[in-house]
Amino acid sequence: MNIVILGGGGVVGQKLAKNLTARGHLKGKTIGKISLADIVEPPTTQGCDSIVCDITDPASVARAIPQGTDVIYLLAAIVSAHAEAEFETGMQINLHGTMNVLERARALGTKPTLVFSSSIAVFGGEAPNPITDHVILNPQTSYGTQKAIGEMLVQDYSRKGFIDGRAFRLPTISVRPGKPNRAASSFMSSILREPLNGQEAICPVGPDFPHYYLSPRMCAENLVRGAEVAEEKIGLNRAMIMPGKIWTIQQLIDAMTAVAGPAPAKLIRWESQPEIERIVMGWRWDIHAGKSLELGLAADESFEDNIRYYLEDDLPRT
Amino acid sequence: MNIVILGGGGVVGQKLAKNLTARGHLKGKTIGKISLADIVEPPTTQGCDSIVCDITDPASVARAIPQGTDVIYLLAAIVSAHAEAEFETGMQINLHGTMNVLERARALGTKPTLVFSSSIAVFGGEAPNPITDHVILNPQTSYGTQKAIGEMLVQDYSRKGFIDGRAFRLPTISVRPGKPNRAASSFMSSILREPLNGQEAICPVGPDFPHYYLSPRMCAENLVRGAEVAEEKIGLNRAMIMPGKIWTIQQLIDAMTAVAGPAPAKLIRWESQPEIERIVMGWRWDIHAGKSLELGLAADESFEDNIRYYLEDDLPRT
Repeated sequence: MNIVILGGGGVVGQKLAKNLTARGHLKGKTIGKISLADIVEPPTTQGCDSIVCDITDPASVARAIPQGTDVIYLLAAIVSAHAEAEFETGMQINLHGTMNVLERARALGTKPTLVFSSSIAVFGGEAPNPITDHVILNPQTSYGTQKAIGEMLVQDYSRKGFIDGRAFRLPTISVRPGKPNRAASSFMSSILREPLNGQEAICPVGPDFPHYYLSPRMCAENLVRGAEVAEEKIGLNRAMIMPGKIWTIQQLIDAMTAVAGPAPAKLIRWESQPEIERIVMGWRWDIHAGKSLELGLAADESFEDNIRYYLEDDLPRT
Repeated sequence: MNIVILGGGGVVGQKLAKNLTARGHLKGKTIGKISLADIVEPPTTQGCDSIVCDITDPASVARAIPQGTDVIYLLAAIVSAHAEAEFETGMQINLHGTMNVLERARALGTKPTLVFSSSIAVFGGEAPNPITDHVILNPQTSYGTQKAIGEMLVQDYSRKGFIDGRAFRLPTISVRPGKPNRAASSFMSSILREPLNGQEAICPVGPDFPHYYLSPRMCAENLVRGAEVAEEKIGLNRAMIMPGKIWTIQQLIDAMTAVAGPAPAKLIRWESQPEIERIVMGWRWDIHAGKSLELGLAADESFEDNIRYYLEDDLPRT
């Protein structure tokens, strides 16, 4: 059982690698090799190889996915704001890169399992609430468009028998470790992470703001379970919403207080940021996973779990 | 007002050219030039130029869509059975060809109007009935997948302001002129066309078989109206179902008898063809246009119209 994780240097890729290494087996077979591939060499993780791969280059993709690869995780992408600012870069990496990986997987001739990370960014525009697996994809970003197209291709390559593909629309991941970034969703982790680290953070929306969340630990676990699902159970659509739960900002903060005491919440400053507010108010949150729950994937039990996982897995050691 | 019709040699492209020529204007402007482009030189139509264009070749696309093009109709595609039998050909023509046209339209830098012919083949699989503009696309053919991706790209290129795009999911076109072809839907025209021409035809399904239909004349008219819709009225999804109506085989035949008397229906032989039946039973028919009707597109009034249009427009002169 040889596994390649494209985007293996990212938060989810790294957690997935640790999960797989700890398990030691996948789809009923002992894991031989795990390769982490990314545009810059991924941090070395025990039991994993790392390789530099530019998914816009078919030859580079072929080197990263050698013959004998059984499972491919396609997590590599540039994020929403980047793909929106640089249309051509987004098309090259998120669309043509995905096509290169699918063509390589097909060329193997062995029908590898391929797990594709899509996003709830595929929903938007005129899609009616509640958002379910049966609602039209109407992305309002180029990133969401490119992910939606990736889903369609994974579906058709699977239908044709070239791959055994599965595509999961990831919720917003929180508590995300590391530093704040320029993503509009950055605050959905930083209002928890920074206070838990003893630092101030700014919340640009009100306490009633709802969103659809999953912890990084559970996301990695779902990507493992997503690979393990028996193909005959998947049905006629390979793309589905990954389980998450809907929480308000106040519920996030209450969970932090329940787990870590009252001090961290006092480090949150409420400060309106109309530009951020304008973007995130357009996002969809009334999202309800269906098929993925039936197939054995799961959401976090409560947001207190998300907080605990951050403290256990990611809190910087001082 | 200069117009390019890619796929101008096809049934719909030819009818569209005649409609536009007869009108003489589009979007409030006098039509200067209409160019019919196709992989083989399209039949010359009065008032139109014709050009050979291979949409898989960006240079050929650039020649077919010169600077000064105001409206592009993208009707070119290989059909369902062909794209299913030859995966790579389908991907090249229906997907990469569409991408080449969109990139050329963007390169013009003038935000041309682009009308894309999608298909009800984008629906299928787990999409729940009734099929509306808000139901997930879950195509079960490579052709449907490639059309669905085309829709997504037209949407995103429009959202970015590169083009003013509109995508319409065409119903099954009947009565289609010409000869029977190998498409599984061929009988949906031939059981009417051949008897109206005084020839026998085979019906491989029962009289209760329902489907979603539009006449070629009304399809061309809808493509004209679709270009004329003011951009600000289109909303956040540029792709929509083109109006059609749901009829059973018996209703088609009754309409033929009402218009042309009882003789033609006697030329239909009922003969089960399990292979055809197997394919068409999987097709979706419980389809209901929404936005396109609000925007002024229309279905045929009754199937008697479809019969009359065939007799007026297409009956071979003997």
